[in-house]
Amino acid sequence: MNIVYNEITGGVCAAAGFKAYGMHAGFRKNTSKLDLAMIVADKPCTAAGVYTKNKVFAAPVGVTRGHLANGIAQAVICNSGNANACTPDGYETAEASCKAVSAVTGIPAEDVIVASTGVIGVSLPLQPLTDALPGLYSALEANENGADLAAQAIMTTDTKKKEFALSYEFGGKTIHIGGMCKGSGMIHPNMGTMLGFITTDAAVSSALLDKALHAAIEDSFNMVSVDGDTSTNDMVCVMASGYAGNDEIHSEGDAYAAFAGALHTLCMKMAQAIAADGEGATKFLKCEVTGAATKEDARILSKSVIASSLVKTAMYGADANWGRVICALGYSGVDIDMKTIDISFSSEAGSIDVCKDGGTLLFDEDIAKKILLCDSVTIHCNMHAGEFSATAFGCDLSYEYVRINGDYRS
Amino acid sequence: MNIVYNEITGGVCAAAGFKAYGMHAGFRKNTSKLDLAMIVADKPCTAAGVYTKNKVFAAPVGVTRGHLANGIAQAVICNSGNANACTPDGYETAEASCKAVSAVTGIPAEDVIVASTGVIGVSLPLQPLTDALPGLYSALEANENGADLAAQAIMTTDTKKKEFALSYEFGGKTIHIGGMCKGSGMIHPNMGTMLGFITTDAAVSSALLDKALHAAIEDSFNMVSVDGDTSTNDMVCVMASGYAGNDEIHSEGDAYAAFAGALHTLCMKMAQAIAADGEGATKFLKCEVTGAATKEDARILSKSVIASSLVKTAMYGADANWGRVICALGYSGVDIDMKTIDISFSSEAGSIDVCKDGGTLLFDEDIAKKILLCDSVTIHCNMHAGEFSATAFGCDLSYEYVRINGDYRS
Repeated sequence: MNIVYNEITGGVCAAAGFKAYGMHAGFRKNTSKLDLAMIVADKPCTAAGVYTKNKVFAAPVGVTRGHLANGIAQAVICNSGNANACTPDGYETAEASCKAVSAVTGIPAEDVIVASTGVIGVSLPLQPLTDALPGLYSALEANENGADLAAQAIMTTDTKKKEFALSYEFGGKTIHIGGMCKGSGMIHPNMGTMLGFITTDAAVSSALLDKALHAAIEDSFNMVSVDGDTSTNDMVCVMASGYAGNDEIHSEGDAYAAFAGALHTLCMKMAQAIAADGEGATKFLKCEVTGAATKEDARILSKSVIASSLVKTAMYGADANWGRVICALGYSGVDIDMKTIDISFSSEAGSIDVCKDGGTLLFDEDIAKKILLCDSVTIHCNMHAGEFSATAFGCDLSYEYVRINGDYRS
Repeated sequence: MNIVYNEITGGVCAAAGFKAYGMHAGFRKNTSKLDLAMIVADKPCTAAGVYTKNKVFAAPVGVTRGHLANGIAQAVICNSGNANACTPDGYETAEASCKAVSAVTGIPAEDVIVASTGVIGVSLPLQPLTDALPGLYSALEANENGADLAAQAIMTTDTKKKEFALSYEFGGKTIHIGGMCKGSGMIHPNMGTMLGFITTDAAVSSALLDKALHAAIEDSFNMVSVDGDTSTNDMVCVMASGYAGNDEIHSEGDAYAAFAGALHTLCMKMAQAIAADGEGATKFLKCEVTGAATKEDARILSKSVIASSLVKTAMYGADANWGRVICALGYSGVDIDMKTIDISFSSEAGSIDVCKDGGTLLFDEDIAKKILLCDSVTIHCNMHAGEFSATAFGCDLSYEYVRINGDYRS
């Protein structure tokens, strides 16, 4: 089976049956910053979600988990500027937000996905939402492609809006899948909130949608997001309208594989865009671990390197300080043999081996500098301990990170 | 039993039987930076060590572990500027360093503690050591208190030398204990190398010395150093000369308790000095977790908060962003109930409650700002889940950290 996934435009509106829009509702003071996004499907969709593993999770995460329990959703409402987390009235407000959407759209409140991102511990006011909703919904109805504005409205410290879409052919049908996401705050990959919303016109049962989403997340968002080290508000949701006209996918045959591949490809694009847009980042980093004894080892090792602040600052300084890389492999918790580790750096400027069998190699510092000065750098670690590999995504750590996070609430 | 521990001067020379010295030997280019420290006891001492848990450990860690296996040591040799880690000739060089010390001092090579700190992956040259040793040893012999220079010589990015000493009375004898340490690099507490060397004139069996050291480390260095997240070179060693004339401590009675208390007090001072001197730090942070279900939970929770880059940058900005504190508690891995957590901030300017029962409290931002602008800030988290508490030590995260670590090798 050889499926070609074509990159297309349209974001969350690329798939048939979905409209979206974004506007400034007033959750933020800055009136030029959009802060409320909405996605509406013109009929109930099968749906699935993946949520933060943080024991402290925001009200909208709890509410959405409940709403998606039956595998059905028809709309997304998401504000930025306030996380609706750790406040006494959080659940009430999140439920009231869904009811307000219901009042305007006619969609049952329990089919609304609600999400928030922003400051923790400040009550989310309902008024900006209720005031904005009629206008937001009219604009959404009137526009074929408001996906761009919706993608802008969920941004916080993101410097770039993140939306992607793909199409592919299967069984004589053209299937579309699109998504938008937000996230940065990458000193640890993933301490800032990550949100992802995906729409598709494939017909997929909610059980298989759930399965495909979990699989896609594993290699993508979870390789930016260190497991267990997630924000209070993280979630990724997918809705499937079925308008593509394919036979509903409800078992794991070729049709499922083709769809799962599309979802995986889309999630990889979204996750890498998040990593590259880390707060204050000047370059995109990948850590590719090969030769690990297990898949889980490979994941842990690559995430340990990509999360190391000392590795990140070295990359910011274009300093081929591989000692920090091997140190991060060493404290990852994986049982490794330092004597079999090889390390190299690569980018579009070339590739250079810096460590062989756990020991130093003589290498040309000028060539290393040239490689590390590129916008996108890959750190390769071959453990020579088995056949498994994994890649984690991140970014460097700059002065700018500190500025952004030193006074985020102001 | 009520023992008073008096702070005294003298560092590692405060205890009878020890001399120390530091000089520039040439491991660093900057000739004004001391880079070689030596401590010599005038007779074999009982001794114990605690070492990095990193799977990738430097040669001197392996060599010292071997030398201390019999619980006896008589000298410490430590260079800064080069970690002697991950090089093909590391063990050979570390062993040769001990032999060079033996040749000059007459102390058996296997009674020498060897340590290094600095860049990983660059071969440590032996020549600077062999050239410097005769002069270093003469100067050490001729000076009653070279402790200060020794403490300077082990510094890397430390901005302050760190030495402390205590005395106490027990059973009619006066016992002295002193130590020097180095460490910073505190974006994660403990990613930079931490070294500690302690001397005492108490008579203590090596078994009890080992027990007391492990106990002291647990609340001190390990609460700066997140377990498992340690550098390749970390070690803390203690030597006991017995010159105080007390009956040798070889069981856990009052004499042991008094000595263990002194060692604990000294290690707490050293660890807090390391935390306060984090790279680029502008303030010292403590996170005090109370009401945890277990001691281990309390340790993990407090370290999770103190290691959070988002908490650290918030503290740098004097921003009472307690949402980041509760978020760090939430992803710590401990099973917590967010609904019972109280959080407050305190400093010499006062104390302020910011979160009650996991939810926001209305508080005066100006008062909070005043509290957080102090040089030393404590974050209190009461989990209301049990009776256990723990305190972790760290510092804020500033622009300066990035500058220091962006080009460390240059």
